[in-house]
Amino acid sequence: MHKYALGLDFGTESLRVVLMDLDTGEQFTTKSRYRWGVMDEYLKDKVQLPEDWALQDAEDYLQAMGEAIPQVLKLADITSDSVVSIGIAFTACTVVPAKRDGTPISSLSGFTYEPHAYVKLWKHHGAKEETRIINEIAKARNEPFLPYYSGQISVEWMLPKVFELLRNAPHIYEITDIFFDAGDWIVYQLTGKRTRSTCNAGYKGLWVAELGFPQPEFLEALDPRLRNLYETKQITEVNPPGTLAGFLTHRGADITGLKPGTPVAVSMIDAHAGAIGMGISQPGIMGIIMGTSSCHMVLNDKPVIFDGYAGMVKDGILPGYWGYESGQSATGDILAWFVSRFVKCDNPYTTMERLAMELKPGESHLIALDWWHGNRSVLMDAELTGLIVGLTLNTKPHDIYRALVESTAYGTRVIAEVHENAGIMIDEIRVCGGLTKSELLVKIYADVLNKPIKVYKGEPVATGALICGLVAAGKEWTGFDTFDKAIQAIVGAPDTIVIPDERAVKVYDKLYSMYRELYKMFGTQYDIMHGLRQIEVSS
Amino acid sequence: MHKYALGLDFGTESLRVVLMDLDTGEQFTTKSRYRWGVMDEYLKDKVQLPEDWALQDAEDYLQAMGEAIPQVLKLADITSDSVVSIGIAFTACTVVPAKRDGTPISSLSGFTYEPHAYVKLWKHHGAKEETRIINEIAKARNEPFLPYYSGQISVEWMLPKVFELLRNAPHIYEITDIFFDAGDWIVYQLTGKRTRSTCNAGYKGLWVAELGFPQPEFLEALDPRLRNLYETKQITEVNPPGTLAGFLTHRGADITGLKPGTPVAVSMIDAHAGAIGMGISQPGIMGIIMGTSSCHMVLNDKPVIFDGYAGMVKDGILPGYWGYESGQSATGDILAWFVSRFVKCDNPYTTMERLAMELKPGESHLIALDWWHGNRSVLMDAELTGLIVGLTLNTKPHDIYRALVESTAYGTRVIAEVHENAGIMIDEIRVCGGLTKSELLVKIYADVLNKPIKVYKGEPVATGALICGLVAAGKEWTGFDTFDKAIQAIVGAPDTIVIPDERAVKVYDKLYSMYRELYKMFGTQYDIMHGLRQIEVSS
Repeated sequence: MHKYALGLDFGTESLRVVLMDLDTGEQFTTKSRYRWGVMDEYLKDKVQLPEDWALQDAEDYLQAMGEAIPQVLKLADITSDSVVSIGIAFTACTVVPAKRDGTPISSLSGFTYEPHAYVKLWKHHGAKEETRIINEIAKARNEPFLPYYSGQISVEWMLPKVFELLRNAPHIYEITDIFFDAGDWIVYQLTGKRTRSTCNAGYKGLWVAELGFPQPEFLEALDPRLRNLYETKQITEVNPPGTLAGFLTHRGADITGLKPGTPVAVSMIDAHAGAIGMGISQPGIMGIIMGTSSCHMVLNDKPVIFDGYAGMVKDGILPGYWGYESGQSATGDILAWFVSRFVKCDNPYTTMERLAMELKPGESHLIALDWWHGNRSVLMDAELTGLIVGLTLNTKPHDIYRALVESTAYGTRVIAEVHENAGIMIDEIRVCGGLTKSELLVKIYADVLNKPIKVYKGEPVATGALICGLVAAGKEWTGFDTFDKAIQAIVGAPDTIVIPDERAVKVYDKLYSMYRELYKMFGTQYDIMHGLRQIEVSS
Repeated sequence: MHKYALGLDFGTESLRVVLMDLDTGEQFTTKSRYRWGVMDEYLKDKVQLPEDWALQDAEDYLQAMGEAIPQVLKLADITSDSVVSIGIAFTACTVVPAKRDGTPISSLSGFTYEPHAYVKLWKHHGAKEETRIINEIAKARNEPFLPYYSGQISVEWMLPKVFELLRNAPHIYEITDIFFDAGDWIVYQLTGKRTRSTCNAGYKGLWVAELGFPQPEFLEALDPRLRNLYETKQITEVNPPGTLAGFLTHRGADITGLKPGTPVAVSMIDAHAGAIGMGISQPGIMGIIMGTSSCHMVLNDKPVIFDGYAGMVKDGILPGYWGYESGQSATGDILAWFVSRFVKCDNPYTTMERLAMELKPGESHLIALDWWHGNRSVLMDAELTGLIVGLTLNTKPHDIYRALVESTAYGTRVIAEVHENAGIMIDEIRVCGGLTKSELLVKIYADVLNKPIKVYKGEPVATGALICGLVAAGKEWTGFDTFDKAIQAIVGAPDTIVIPDERAVKVYDKLYSMYRELYKMFGTQYDIMHGLRQIEVSS
């Protein structure tokens, strides 16, 4: 009987599953869309949500597993006996407030229409005020964890989201026993074990290898009610990716249709799993996972402190390395915004891609600042906004489309450059995710960054999760006990390699210098973007 | 038999005609669209035109008169005998290169597909390089006409357009006998008289009451071939609006269906005629003619030099006053650009108006710089471009629509403020033109400018032309010999008066200060907009 390994990738809109035949390398994939998906205007079509909110229903995740896993077994024509390992990747920081037994607060009777009872999705930006307070107090106290996060806590992480809930819905804070990272909540549903990875805890939970979690004194300074947050309402057992979390319980087996006793790895953040799924197992390579937003992963032998990463975590991506994560809070989302709201033709994406591809670099005479959802790296300022300059009566929709793609490439170049300026060189870029379907985008990235780009299609995130499962289950179950061996065996060659075009590189160098000027003007010198956000609307 | 007066308004897309019964005040209006209209992408559907070009075919004007004038007579059920005066308003500076007998060069055999043989429409921006040279040399020589134009010659005026033609099509320059202002070309077609008004000559032809036309030495410094331009290829007889140009010839009668011998006034610029048509006969009032672009007119008792007007001309609008003209090179054009290219719903204008009206001031959290076609006043820089800041994933089309309307209001406020800072106070705004159909726009202008706005519907430009005709023809023909009396008799009360809303004014004061900051940043401090225009596109 062949052995099969399973990787689960819980994305923003859907769950993707990869099942791999470990003897032949054959892969099977399925996908299940969440029922409610992203609730960013209304909660269950009833309660209107404030701007910048993004909720999910945790029940969606279970339902999606119940659909996609049996489907993939059926597709491979195998029974659950053959599955020897399960790895899990999840968006982060996506927070599930739950009871001790794992029941989401939103599933308790009487909480169906309470927004704060629901999962706060990674891109929920409702905790801006709390983030401001956390940063202010952390800086005032010179908290030792700060340098690991370039001195800035992001609105998307665990503590701001918990603090937001405490301040706005104290009754829900009160009855919440555990604020789960959604990936850990899945692990708990499957194994009954409460455990976190260095990845989730390190990048989103303020856990630092040398320091542990934030001290009660700091939490108390934020709000006395937070003092014991980590002792009472957070999981504090932390293990590197590829650690065994536990074995499938009967309840876990019921949810998934798999066999009780199957090994399950600790959960990883989706983007970080993607880096593993693209075979990144050494320094010198930047892995970018591009979807609605983008995450940038780089490994380094030692910790180097500079401005601009979201997190620098020991064993955060791959045990033995310091993993650097940076991010752009909207990339595909910006294109989707434009195409869905402003492009009038049929097949708007295809048309925009085709027409924008016919333009030469510089021909749109436009530059955009890609801050439609704030700037995660390197400014870490969620209040920044998008800008387009160069508009004329001759500007056509595909001019803007191309300028938007270019703006996200410039944003990535800023991130690459702060690494290189700190001595962490990047010789090669590997990319995966929905956005990499765009040939235009990949070409523009190669030309703007002036680096070769290797594109990994398929399901690198789910594959990365699968590799974690293999290593966690270990030699006896799967034949693998190290990441190096598992990556070598599982990750194939890139689907495409795009080499920069010399002439385009020259034009983009000039445009990029203008982008940098705008970046400085609006990112640090002038406060117009904040002023516009804060303007008091006339009644 | 009742007496009737005729006013002709040659706009960008069509000719509008007003016929008024001088005994009853009853008005009749007709309109005739030009056949070719604005040719800005192709010349007669055949020859592709460069960006920023805008041509017309002078034959269109004759054809439009031949249609619209007989129609309006028919509508009023009168014969041509009853018409006692003709006044003409025309866009400016719209240039007709012609033979001595008035034949447009484009109508000569062999010139049908020569772009430079055609009428260069006011908004043709092809003469940027020539404008740069003219300004550079005029400044170096400290030409005495400069202060009358805030030190800047505009790309839209006569000399840049003639110079552009000379440099790019010297063979056409050679065979052109006269470069007519299009309005003067009409007067010549109708009366056989070559004459210009202080209005056209002063605002667009570098004619200054105290100085006359530019000196041959200056022209020679531009190009030796231009030395005798004014002596040989320009009309140099200049008279104030309301002066009799001549009487309808048989040829003029053939074109129009009117009676030979009918008095015809010197031509006026359309916007300036609009000021008269809105009854502006004294200082303290700004008249704004808002269509594809906007023109701002203010009268003053004496000349005051400041930065920001396009022209300050003695007798330029109304004899006895110094007329100040300023302008925004695109207002309605920006909205049309947005609605036609980016708004997906049915009835896009109506929908945008309705949804944008539901927004409160400040609620879009957007600011735009209204420079889609450059900035005429107060920066006089045709190379500036549009900008939008504040974009987020929540930004909706009507947010942008409203921000674009607001941006044009901010641009108008800048213009009003430079007048007031120079001591030319503005207590009231009068507006007319296609854009004033938008209740949203008029309300936003009242709130942004914090001044009452009187809206004149109907046809103020044609009415202003009609008033010029009345005064020119004089007491014997029409019963009127002064503008004051004619204006009092002809111009009625405004159709609407909009008073500023105090709370909105407060919000807009804050937004306007941000607009001013952006204005300074991109207008004078940072050279990004020029840099983007000039970027060398990769081949």
